[in-house]
Amino acid sequence: MAPFTVIVAATLRRSLFKHSHFRRRCLHSAIDYPLSHPIYTIWASNTSLGKTLVSAGLSISFLSSSSSSPSFPKRRFVYLKPIQTGFPHDSDSAFLYRKFCQFYASKSLPFSVFASNSVFRASYPAANEVLGNASLADGGEGLKNLHWYEERKLQGTDGNGVEQFPVWEAVCKTLYAWKEAVSPHLAAERESAMVSDSEVLDLLRRCLENDIVGKSATTEEVEVMSVIETAGGVASPGPSGSLQCDLYRPFRLPGILVGDGRLGGISGTISAYESLTLRGYDIAAVVFEDHGLMNEVPLLSYFRNRVPVLVLPSIPKDMSDDLISWFDKSQTVFTSLKEIMLSTFLERTRRLHEMPKKSCDAFWWPFTQHKLVSEEKVTVIDSRCGENFAVLKSSDIISEQFDACASWWTQGPDANLQIELAKDMGYTAARYGHVMFPENVYEPALKLAELLLEGVGKGWASRVYYSDNGSTAVEIALKMAFRKFLSDHEMLSDNVSSDENGNCMDLKVLALRGSYHGDTLGAMEAQAPSSYTGFLQQPWYSGRGLFLDPPTVALYSGTWKVSLPQKMKSVMSGCESLSFSSRDEIFKRSRNGSGLASLYTSSILQELELLSDCNALSYIGALIVEPVVQGAGGMQMIDPLYQRTLVMECKRRKIPVIFDEVFTGFWRLGRETAAEMLYCEPDISCFAKLMTGGIIPLAATLASEATFEAFTGDSKLKALLHGHSYSAHAMGCAAAVKSIQWFKDCNTNMNLIPESRLLQEVWDPELVVRISLLPAVHRVVSLGTLCAIEIQAEGSNAGYASTYASSLLQTLRGDGIYMRPLGNVVYLMCGPCTPRDTCRHLLDKVYSRIHEFGQQKDQQASAA
Amino acid sequence: MAPFTVIVAATLRRSLFKHSHFRRRCLHSAIDYPLSHPIYTIWASNTSLGKTLVSAGLSISFLSSSSSSPSFPKRRFVYLKPIQTGFPHDSDSAFLYRKFCQFYASKSLPFSVFASNSVFRASYPAANEVLGNASLADGGEGLKNLHWYEERKLQGTDGNGVEQFPVWEAVCKTLYAWKEAVSPHLAAERESAMVSDSEVLDLLRRCLENDIVGKSATTEEVEVMSVIETAGGVASPGPSGSLQCDLYRPFRLPGILVGDGRLGGISGTISAYESLTLRGYDIAAVVFEDHGLMNEVPLLSYFRNRVPVLVLPSIPKDMSDDLISWFDKSQTVFTSLKEIMLSTFLERTRRLHEMPKKSCDAFWWPFTQHKLVSEEKVTVIDSRCGENFAVLKSSDIISEQFDACASWWTQGPDANLQIELAKDMGYTAARYGHVMFPENVYEPALKLAELLLEGVGKGWASRVYYSDNGSTAVEIALKMAFRKFLSDHEMLSDNVSSDENGNCMDLKVLALRGSYHGDTLGAMEAQAPSSYTGFLQQPWYSGRGLFLDPPTVALYSGTWKVSLPQKMKSVMSGCESLSFSSRDEIFKRSRNGSGLASLYTSSILQELELLSDCNALSYIGALIVEPVVQGAGGMQMIDPLYQRTLVMECKRRKIPVIFDEVFTGFWRLGRETAAEMLYCEPDISCFAKLMTGGIIPLAATLASEATFEAFTGDSKLKALLHGHSYSAHAMGCAAAVKSIQWFKDCNTNMNLIPESRLLQEVWDPELVVRISLLPAVHRVVSLGTLCAIEIQAEGSNAGYASTYASSLLQTLRGDGIYMRPLGNVVYLMCGPCTPRDTCRHLLDKVYSRIHEFGQQKDQQASAA
Repeated sequence: MAPFTVIVAATLRRSLFKHSHFRRRCLHSAIDYPLSHPIYTIWASNTSLGKTLVSAGLSISFLSSSSSSPSFPKRRFVYLKPIQTGFPHDSDSAFLYRKFCQFYASKSLPFSVFASNSVFRASYPAANEVLGNASLADGGEGLKNLHWYEERKLQGTDGNGVEQFPVWEAVCKTLYAWKEAVSPHLAAERESAMVSDSEVLDLLRRCLENDIVGKSATTEEVEVMSVIETAGGVASPGPSGSLQCDLYRPFRLPGILVGDGRLGGISGTISAYESLTLRGYDIAAVVFEDHGLMNEVPLLSYFRNRVPVLVLPSIPKDMSDDLISWFDKSQTVFTSLKEIMLSTFLERTRRLHEMPKKSCDAFWWPFTQHKLVSEEKVTVIDSRCGENFAVLKSSDIISEQFDACASWWTQGPDANLQIELAKDMGYTAARYGHVMFPENVYEPALKLAELLLEGVGKGWASRVYYSDNGSTAVEIALKMAFRKFLSDHEMLSDNVSSDENGNCMDLKVLALRGSYHGDTLGAMEAQAPSSYTGFLQQPWYSGRGLFLDPPTVALYSGTWKVSLPQKMKSVMSGCESLSFSSRDEIFKRSRNGSGLASLYTSSILQELELLSDCNALSYIGALIVEPVVQGAGGMQMIDPLYQRTLVMECKRRKIPVIFDEVFTGFWRLGRETAAEMLYCEPDISCFAKLMTGGIIPLAATLASEATFEAFTGDSKLKALLHGHSYSAHAMGCAAAVKSIQWFKDCNTNMNLIPESRLLQEVWDPELVVRISLLPAVHRVVSLGTLCAIEIQAEGSNAGYASTYASSLLQTLRGDGIYMRPLGNVVYLMCGPCTPRDTCRHLLDKVYSRIHEFGQQKDQQASAA
Repeated sequence: MAPFTVIVAATLRRSLFKHSHFRRRCLHSAIDYPLSHPIYTIWASNTSLGKTLVSAGLSISFLSSSSSSPSFPKRRFVYLKPIQTGFPHDSDSAFLYRKFCQFYASKSLPFSVFASNSVFRASYPAANEVLGNASLADGGEGLKNLHWYEERKLQGTDGNGVEQFPVWEAVCKTLYAWKEAVSPHLAAERESAMVSDSEVLDLLRRCLENDIVGKSATTEEVEVMSVIETAGGVASPGPSGSLQCDLYRPFRLPGILVGDGRLGGISGTISAYESLTLRGYDIAAVVFEDHGLMNEVPLLSYFRNRVPVLVLPSIPKDMSDDLISWFDKSQTVFTSLKEIMLSTFLERTRRLHEMPKKSCDAFWWPFTQHKLVSEEKVTVIDSRCGENFAVLKSSDIISEQFDACASWWTQGPDANLQIELAKDMGYTAARYGHVMFPENVYEPALKLAELLLEGVGKGWASRVYYSDNGSTAVEIALKMAFRKFLSDHEMLSDNVSSDENGNCMDLKVLALRGSYHGDTLGAMEAQAPSSYTGFLQQPWYSGRGLFLDPPTVALYSGTWKVSLPQKMKSVMSGCESLSFSSRDEIFKRSRNGSGLASLYTSSILQELELLSDCNALSYIGALIVEPVVQGAGGMQMIDPLYQRTLVMECKRRKIPVIFDEVFTGFWRLGRETAAEMLYCEPDISCFAKLMTGGIIPLAATLASEATFEAFTGDSKLKALLHGHSYSAHAMGCAAAVKSIQWFKDCNTNMNLIPESRLLQEVWDPELVVRISLLPAVHRVVSLGTLCAIEIQAEGSNAGYASTYASSLLQTLRGDGIYMRPLGNVVYLMCGPCTPRDTCRHLLDKVYSRIHEFGQQKDQQASAA
């Protein structure tokens, strides 16, 4: 009896494809994949290095290894070839299918296998080759659902000739095929059969789901190994023209690199490996065919034994035995490779699973009450791709979540910018590492200074002072402002700090209640007392400011309105309207002549007079504001007219003006600076967060030349003696240079309105209005990349420490949106380049969930 | 008449090599090269892609282009092939020489050329092939000076048959040759003819010097273009086994990448490019041979038009015309390539030259009196490689300077670690970018926390709080310590901050005079008043500490001695010895029982009592010290016995102890922490600077579990509400993980004494003593990677603002050592892995220059 029996071969079984509606998921293609079984990508450093032979060897090794865990009575090897050109003459899935069957046929194996090969979609020329022209219209465009399927049952015996049940499976699939044997981007173009990256990923995701967890309807456990074989070299273009290493990046599956054993192959193998790591991939092993050149020696030295290097026997010229003897000879290598893949997979999942506990034990998270964070609440972040996290979900799925916190208000890059920044980070670390700054110059620091001065500092700033974060940038700004104040008011003598009676001069900062400038003491002192500033938080805090209550603006039930602080309300004349027909109205300069403007002026003057009446040695040495939106204070939009009035009054009194644009700068609010919306210029401005694209800390305090001059003189002691070791560190500067250019270039930032220096509205205005109309919503502020929603709450449910909205956010995380509340304020924050479609999708979800949340709370209230 | 005449061919001219004594420069191989003319490296993405054809095409294009600048009456093309295998059958320099002559012969060109080819050194088997066995001993080892030389005078006419003078030159040189046609590392090994990387670089440097500037003895100006052709692919091993992209990195010359036009060539070209940028190289253009696959389209898209991509015509199979017609056809491409190379070169030099002025106009350097920094004083840093800067020197040289400031006390990497970190930075940026920290976990943050807790925090710390720099780490530490103090002393009630009469509680920090903890206000408040803290620097500073005068230790004229502060001196009993027989004596625990220990204890108690007598509401809430050495305070070594006593007294009083190890941590003083030298443990410890290997800002505040517990409770408001957006940013954590592991691994850190957790003495102790004996030297502190020397100075020459030592430092910069003074203290600081040979060489120079400096000052004094 023959050792295998053909049951079904080369047939079309359309019924199998009933789930294959190639639905286009443009909006939000979730890149989820199961962690229950290993999935590897097979890469190669060049074409024709034997990727498919490696895949075939693995299939044989995986299915024919003797010991199976008792918990897995079944076993399945899944081979996926997403992109195939030269089809049907070349078909790697068919090759693997045939090789497997041939190898099986040559042995007497004690197990049966159900082997299959299918091809999903093909260009019309490729499909015609398979099906014959008759069945298809000539010159069809796009990709045809081919539904090619072939299968065999390979019957094994137990050694006594007793047939074994066909419990094991070898599943081979080609996802997309083109006829010409050229690079996929050329074939797709020439055969008029394009496919987008997201379509490829979506079909791949569904295959992984079906083949690994899809049959879990049965209680039977299956041991699965999947490999996804790429086409050509690691950076060969895919059908859309994206490089394959970029195309598959959202999954970030672990990989095997098939290297090159020929002359020159060391270099090609190393470079291919570096291209993969430069995109955040992990490579479990390198394997290559022996050509007698001992390429493994330098490769092992390069990898410092961190990546195993395996050498396959030379492939014989004579293939008359269908490589059976080669596969035999290679079996020990393939078994080692398979073991490495399994153990690396187990190590990865083990680590992911232990991370919540370990983090609860070792971390001290900022702004976090650890007692309220159980292990289950910890989010394990495996990676990020553009705006999306890949997180561990329900212990055995890697799932995509949109990072709606913009990683704490810093994040900017889309997936393309992230890879560009990764390359720049590698380059800059290699070129400079870090070099000290004072009295030195190097390209990234100078280039960034130039970009800042002709960008966010244009028209007023002439100097750039670098530091590490928003808080240090503010401390520096305050030091600058105070000196400038003392200089402008001729108070620079040595004994200025006290009067003749020894009473100390009291330099105060003028600031708005609810503003936030950082957590170091100097920055804290410029903030009004709050939860952050109590004696138990920082006993040294005293609040060295005159803190004004500002009028705020927001969208309330469909209308933009000003809310006045109590003091102003009482003196306001009744006729003044506090509503606006549109958000744009709020920013109009014509409001300068309004009654509200007079009210603002008089209220500011009153406060200033009160201070000087109180203490003759008290001076306002600086004004500091977050222009337009106060972030940490609860995403409060301040009436721009009020801030403009304040700035003008300070300028009149020669009080230096500091804009803290750490949060608002670099397109956060839809313009490169929020200052542009106020139509006025500061003396000093602070930037950080988004400046580097949100990948690395760096801050800059920009200053006018007059400010700088208050520090020049003959003595070093007159200089600004503040600095940090990493001032102007090259990597931060390089990241900022790339990001600033990227965000303001219409070719890279599709949200930019050409010529206007404005971002398009990313949050659909009509939907924003509908959200503001929900009963559960108190107010909405949507501006630029920010859409903040304050949930209606009272009593203990309100305030910074509130956890009232946490169930809402947990639901949204389940929906794939990672949000974190600011008290009762929930917000979506995207990057300057995030597509509007994505934002629309996010906002839709948020709308539905807040609607539900409101209904639940209502029900709870009526039940209570 | 034939268009060229052979004058000298294939002859040995030993006399030409009289300067070629291949002196080994192990200690300090300066990688200087001229910027007067363009030098390019020719790389390829694989073997056999036509690097030499590109070089040959460039030589023809450069020498035959019509217009020459009138300022350059002469022109020279220099071709260098540092590494040649398969010699003499394969010799790229001979090939280029022949091709050039053939091409010249086929034309009537209006200029004459003097062409030459030489081969410097060859393995014995290779040399035997050239010279015949008779002349050499059989089986010789090493490399032989071959002195092969051939030349031709190619006579041109002006078109009227009038001979032109042979003013132009085509110089071809092979530096090292081996016989076998295999990878250089194999050939070198098999032919017993090894050569180190530094020897290759040294010979290359001398060739560049000779061929470009060496003939400047004549006043005649020569227009030169040099190309250095690598062997194989970008990451092919050189003779020592180092990858060529690593081998040539110290020069960081701009490059041309010869790409691959074949199937799979897009991937190989891109990966090769990425390997080069990942080592900090700039690539001016990519050029490849056309194979009809339109590889330029995806390549141009990849390069986003930032790197030009040029396509050469297909190379004909029929080479009967010696490629003459191919060179003709290719000439427009080579001319474009040459123009790109020239304009890129000019752009680079233009930019380097404008940088000093631009930086003086745009930067606001920290700790710098701009009025004292003229353009000429600005250092232009082109790059760094390991511990060395490459700086612009005398406007037309790129010169190597050892970074003796360790880039402001942060730097650690040797050249190998720098490249490893560059790879990790690319990987981490691609994998994570930045992801927000609170309630999240991701691998680099967790791995680093684990390493910190089992390393620098071992035995006492259980929590890691991340922030951005030393100053923020200290602010966090103070907040932690104060809360712990209040908790330990049962003062956690809400109204603890004032007594029943409304008098405010005054929490002070106990600190040492001269210590420095950062420039943000909270960190400043923990420092005693100094130049940094005056009213004009920060009007809010008040000095919220009890500041003690500590006893210091240093090497004075060959002997380690304690200097007591005045107060202690007056009460000391005469019998106590203040000298030590060795530095190790100072650290001995047995000193705990000494009379000095009692003196220290009583002086500390006295100060504490004084404070509580003064004000009942004054409490010491924390002790903060820089263990062992106070860095910014002038590299003062504090008597460790005193610090130990202080810690013990504080522990006795339940005053939390903070070690500020921002400067001293991670091997700066020869051990992973300076705390180890004090034999006591803190409650809180701050790390930054060297933690990331010195390439990127990141800080960690480590705390004991008892400290952490003072912040746990049911309310978020009890948590530590301090944070920075980039807390635990992935790139910083990844850099720290790699660096911490690298520094403590004997396989990567050759300075580590196995098993002892100690660095070897890198500063030769005997030489250190000799320096301390110089009359110009007041004291020396050498410990770990630090060697600080206080120059003897008085009056206005002393102190932080002094510029007394600046002439000394200018001289040392000329010697290739980049130093920056701290007042009168000059210091050398190396990385934990810097070879002792290098340190010895540096210290030798410093010794000589201080010796000279002292003599000059003496002469000036006696002249005055």
